[in-house]
Order: sequence, then C-alpha cells, then structure tokens
Amino acid sequence: MSISLKPYIGSRDFYPDEMRFRSWMFSVQRKICSSYGYGEYSTPILEPLELYAAKSSEEIVSDQLYRFTDRGDREVAIRPELTPSLARIVSARAKELPVPIRMFNIGNFMRYERPGRGRLREFYQLNVDLIGSASASADVEIVSMGAEILKGYGAKNQDFLIRISDRRLMSSYFSDLSSDSLRKLGRLLDKKEKISPEDFQKELLQVKDDKTFSEKVDSFLSLDLEGAFNLSEQEKLDSDAVMHLRQVISDLEKLGFADCLKFDPAIMRGFDYYTGLIFEIYDTHPENRRALFGGGRYDKLMGLFGKHDLPAVGFGMGDVTLENFLKIHELIHEDTQNSAGIYLTLFSKEMMDHNMKIAALLRAGGLEVETSLEPTKKLGRQFEIAEKKNRKFAVVIGEDEILNKMIRIKNLQTGEQKDVSEDDMVSVLREGF
Amino acid sequence: MSISLKPYIGSRDFYPDEMRFRSWMFSVQRKICSSYGYGEYSTPILEPLELYAAKSSEEIVSDQLYRFTDRGDREVAIRPELTPSLARIVSARAKELPVPIRMFNIGNFMRYERPGRGRLREFYQLNVDLIGSASASADVEIVSMGAEILKGYGAKNQDFLIRISDRRLMSSYFSDLSSDSLRKLGRLLDKKEKISPEDFQKELLQVKDDKTFSEKVDSFLSLDLEGAFNLSEQEKLDSDAVMHLRQVISDLEKLGFADCLKFDPAIMRGFDYYTGLIFEIYDTHPENRRALFGGGRYDKLMGLFGKHDLPAVGFGMGDVTLENFLKIHELIHEDTQNSAGIYLTLFSKEMMDHNMKIAALLRAGGLEVETSLEPTKKLGRQFEIAEKKNRKFAVVIGEDEILNKMIRIKNLQTGEQKDVSEDDMVSVLREGF
Repeated sequence: MSISLKPYIGSRDFYPDEMRFRSWMFSVQRKICSSYGYGEYSTPILEPLELYAAKSSEEIVSDQLYRFTDRGDREVAIRPELTPSLARIVSARAKELPVPIRMFNIGNFMRYERPGRGRLREFYQLNVDLIGSASASADVEIVSMGAEILKGYGAKNQDFLIRISDRRLMSSYFSDLSSDSLRKLGRLLDKKEKISPEDFQKELLQVKDDKTFSEKVDSFLSLDLEGAFNLSEQEKLDSDAVMHLRQVISDLEKLGFADCLKFDPAIMRGFDYYTGLIFEIYDTHPENRRALFGGGRYDKLMGLFGKHDLPAVGFGMGDVTLENFLKIHELIHEDTQNSAGIYLTLFSKEMMDHNMKIAALLRAGGLEVETSLEPTKKLGRQFEIAEKKNRKFAVVIGEDEILNKMIRIKNLQTGEQKDVSEDDMVSVLREGF
Repeated sequence: MSISLKPYIGSRDFYPDEMRFRSWMFSVQRKICSSYGYGEYSTPILEPLELYAAKSSEEIVSDQLYRFTDRGDREVAIRPELTPSLARIVSARAKELPVPIRMFNIGNFMRYERPGRGRLREFYQLNVDLIGSASASADVEIVSMGAEILKGYGAKNQDFLIRISDRRLMSSYFSDLSSDSLRKLGRLLDKKEKISPEDFQKELLQVKDDKTFSEKVDSFLSLDLEGAFNLSEQEKLDSDAVMHLRQVISDLEKLGFADCLKFDPAIMRGFDYYTGLIFEIYDTHPENRRALFGGGRYDKLMGLFGKHDLPAVGFGMGDVTLENFLKIHELIHEDTQNSAGIYLTLFSKEMMDHNMKIAALLRAGGLEVETSLEPTKKLGRQFEIAEKKNRKFAVVIGEDEILNKMIRIKNLQTGEQKDVSEDDMVSVLREGF
C-alpha cells in the first residue's frame, strides 16, 4: 500500500527550517504580550459542539466546522476559533480571576475552507483578550498591542494601517432596519471589496428594497470622525459610540499611531458577537493590500454562559497572513536563517568516549553540539555534512589534540581554523570568530 | 441553554498559573534537545486514517483513535502519537535531509482512553528521534537525552531507573513461537504488573499450551546481562542484539548512569514497530513507582512508505506522567510560582497619558507592566489587586511624582517603598529590591 507523503489538505508540515521561523514569530508575540502583563493560557483542541452552535458566526458553524460524534456519543468539534473557549474558561473561574483579566493564547485551529493565499484549513493564531473593563483605555491597549507586535518584528508605521470603527454606528445609523436586515447589511459590507459593484447594488436591494437606501449606505461609508460627531449631536448616531471612538483614536494618536490610524465605518469583522469597537490592521504594501488581522469588543459573550455580563475586548492574529506580511516587508530575523551550533567530527571509533566527554562539556557551557556517529578519517566529507546541516563550526579532535588537551575549531563560513585548549573552548565557541 | 463550563472529558484547560508550569516543562525539554543539535518540527493535528491503520499499535487504531470523515469524504484521525507523521515527513524529504536526522517535537495528541492518574484523552508529548544511524552510539544518545532531560529539571540519578532491553532477545529466545504468538507473549509481558499472577499464568497457556512454557518465560525474565551473553554464545539468543546491548550499557555507564541503569528483559513497550533496543525510564519514588516514559529502535517503519529503510531510534515523553514525577520529587522551578512583573496604579483619569508613557518606557526596558485602567484614589485597594494578580512591584505616580520626574515603587512582598527617578526606574526594577 502506498501512503501519501503529503500533509492533510490545507495543513502544513513544519520542518526545522520552517519551525525556526514560526518559533521566532511566536516568540515576538509572547514577548510583547508578556510586557503588557498578559498571561499565556491554553484550552483543548476539542470542544463540545454546542459551544460553537451558540457562539460562533453562522458561516463557521454551518460550513467550516470539523465536527463529529465521539465514541461516547458526544457531539464535538475541533476548535475553529478561540473566543468561545476563552468565554468558557473565564466563566468557570469568574469569581477567582481578578479583573481586568489579561490573557493570551497561541494555538492551532481548523476550518473547512478552500485553501488559498492567506487561508488554510489548519492555521495558528495568537489571541489576546482583556476582560472586565469597558473603558476606552482597554480598547486602546488592545489595538496598540496589535500594532506593537508588528513593530516588534521591525515593521514601521508606514507598513500598516489601523482601521477602526464601532458596531454601534451602523445599528444607530440604520435604526429603521430590523436586526436581521442589519446583520445582512453587515455581511454585505464585509464582503464589499470582494464582489463587483453591480452585485453589491443588487444585494443592497435585497436588504432593503428602496432606491434611496443605496445613497444612505454610501453616505454612511463616507463618514469621517467630524461628520460622525455632528450626526451624533443630531441624535442620528449613537453618541456613546462616537465619544468612545474619539477617545480611543485620540489616545492611539498620543501613543504614536497618528500616521497609521483611520476611522473607517466600512469595516465590519465577521463575528456576530462584536458589540462595540472593531478594528482591522491592513497591510499597506502595494503587493499585499489586505487585512492582516483584527478584533473588537464583545461585551455580551460572557453573559451567554448564564453568569453575569463581563465586558471584553480582544483580537486574533493568524500566522499565515502574518508570515506573508513579514516576508513581503523583508522582516525576517537573521537568527531564523543563519547557521548555528557545532558539528563534532569523529576520527575513529576509539575516540568516541573522548568525543562524548567533550560534547558534554560544550553542552554544559550552553552550546548546541551535534556529534558524528560514524567514524571516518575523511575530514572533508565530515565538513560537507556539517555545512549541509547548516552548522557554524566544526570541531576536530585527533590523537594529538587529545594528548595536548586541545580541540581544533573550524569556522565553516570563513574556513578559518583555530586550536584551542579544552579550558578555553566554551568561551571561544560562545564568542565565535 | 446552559453550556458546561468544563473542558471536554479527559482534556485540560491551562490557566496562566498552570501554563507557566507547562511552559517551563517544555522549555527544559527544548533546551536539552537543542543542546544535542536537534531541530524542532511540527506536523498537523489531523492525518489520513490510513497512516495509523498501517503503522500504529492495534489497540490504538481499533479502540483509541479519534476518527471521522471530513466534509470532503476523507477518512481522517486526530493524531494519537507522532511517529507515523515523523515517518511520513522524513520519507517526503528523504533525499534532502542530511543523515543522521535529529529532530524533536512537542505537541498534543488524543486517545480515547478512560481518564485516570497519568492518563488523559488529550495529552502533550515530547518526541525525540534520531534517524539514519543503526549504531549503538545513536541508541546511547537517545537514552541519555531522556535521562538528561530529567536531570535538567534538577532530578538526581537516584530519582529514576533506566530499564533497557532489546526486542530481538525475546524473538530469538522463543524462536519456536509463531510471530503471532510472539506478539501475544509481548503484550502479555507488557501488562504483567497490572494483572494477577493467576491471570498471567492462565493467559500464558493461551500463548502456548505447554506446562514447561511458564518455566521458560520465568527464566527469560530473570536473565541478567552475563546470562544473556552466555546464551548468545550458545546461539540461544541473538548475539548481535546482546553485543549491541552490552555496548549501549557500557557507554551509558561511562556517561555517568551506572547507578540508575538496569538490563531488564521484562520491558516490552507497546508499539509493534520496535525492532531493536527498547527502554523505559521508571520513577523510583516509593509513592510513584511507574514507567515515566520510554522509546526504542524502529528500523523498519520508514520502509513502509515505499522508500528505502532508514534505521531510527527515539522516545516519547508525556506531560502528565512527567508532571507527576516533578511534583512528587518537588522539582518545581521557583519562577513558575513566584510573583513577577509590575502593577502600575492609576490615581486619576488625567494621569492616564503620563501612565501610558511610563508604561511604555518600562516595557521598552524589558519589564512586564500591567496597568490599572480604572482610576482610584484608594491606593490600598490597588495594592490588593496587584497582590491578587501576584505582581512583585506596584508603581504609584501622583502629581508630585510627575512634577519631580519620579515614580514610587512598592515591593509587595516586603512592603518596602522607594522613590526613584524616571531615569533610574528601569534599572532599579530590573535589579529588584
């Protein structure tokens, strides 16, 4: 029987080279989240189906969920997103966890989608959430953390654009629409850039069969912050939402994001559970203009667990779009590509004991040492292997070296060689040459 | 509708406290594996069912696999173990990867088991594998890495016992048995300690209905290394296996494991794919005598993918038994429990801008800063929150402090307070007091 060597469709194998890159991506996320005092957490890969049936977007539940019945007849699903699990575990310890609760997770998720650029079936995602505060400061913290993570990779303000809005603007502006029509309008605006103007107009008429409706939608989409403020004074827009948004934008400007921040009533975000602020961070690179990630405020989700409401705001940052962003902006950390570590050659079988002793000393000194297991007198062949393995140094030990308590170190990039005493070898290899 | 707040049966939620512990466990594993030059890799959570149908143990496939049919009518399974995925990805790049291939993975796995002590349905596991060398040195490296990881947590040799054997011993000693009976005997020996002596004798007769068989099994189980060597000279035991085992044991003794190493023909390891060396690391703590983890050599697995055979050896170390080991031996790193980071109090709303500036400076200095979002003049209440959040320091900034470019730092454990200039605050907080 011949078994496919490929990973399951839409998922990836990460060999050490790719994994170094992924680990670096995650390490920057961990560093920034920790610096804001967020604690990392983790939840199971499987959840009861009912957790998503009530909480996720309709599209995910009906079309994208990996669901099945377990051997104990429980309906379960592989998690397609994290927020419902977060709501579950926060509700479970609502009394013990001191608010505001600041937590982040980096995990894998699965959605049955057609794989394409920036979209896979198994993806990794950072989720960052701040729970227990409804203040503008909470929103500011979450939005700025998203931007600070990009800057943590070396991105500049000009590399991205923060688009920001509030769910309540649309519902107050179109207060004559039923909640069902509002939801339809939201979904339509969400996909506006992906469909033709004709299709957009056609679908608009399905939301409300009225020729002036299209104009009203246009004027909503072209609102700026001052316009929104004026409308709120006329009670045509939720004034709490506008005041909150003004505060968030003003604070983000003070934090240094004035030049990459835009109020944009067109953004929607997919999930139905958002109740207030929503934001997306866009890539400004001409070849990759697209939403990188986003989030928003979901003040009602915790209440769905039968406990009291807890205001909450957060974002999710997927690894696939992030990787595209980093590559197109050439923000790859050199450590993820450079050669590293030591390859310890083996001259003859009798020298294995001595080699193992040297390897143990180097490892105890914090160095990475890969040893040759097959003895050969052909040093050239061993150096070739060491280079293929992308090692920085090769260490050679012959009978003379053992006698003199020395090792010979070859820098595989420069070709330079050095004889170093066993006493000095750790410091020489740590400093490099 | 009321949704359960508990995680799926047999799986766990890791809140930040538990996650700190888990991250520490994994970080020690990563450190040791890297020091031996192993590269981290990762594979998908889902694999085609056929990958396990051919490769895993029968028990896993028929009773423990989480399997289902996806929306595209593919039979898939959540991975119950890693080795088949490893064989797949190594076979896929067999030509490019320079042998010996040294790789490790830390991932989650699912098996439908009855949850109990040391056994869950979703567990995490370190997998370490060395592929492309059949030498005793390869086995020595793998076994010693397992022990070195325990020592990396602070364990002493007396805390564990390495039990070591070779699959070929049993098959050569019982060369009159069919391969099917051999497999049955292996499974029976594997569970010997879990069943009554009467049941063991009863099942022995099912393997071979011969009264002398029980004695033969007894004499096999009581073999020591010298006895094995003598039998191999009489061609009653596979002499390659015995010589290989003697070499491995002798090398491990030289590496400092003489006092925690035992040849033990009774160990079997569950997986059918082992072909040579097998080992288990046992906990010697009187209250936790049990196998912690183990591994072995599987030289035929790679060949099942239709490519050439590649000798391989490795082990898997599950997080549940490891956590039990660390806790019972009190090997918990203090960083996983100590308070850490800074809680920045907020005196009044007007001071938020200044607070955000200070927080940014402290974060840029590498410090963890959680800020208060709700202003209050009641400092006592803010200190309480900071303590509940297990922070080490609270920082207070009032109008005087702003004027004098100072901050006030309170050590929440000692109660000691210090006024420090903004210029010095990073260094003072990094050093602590």
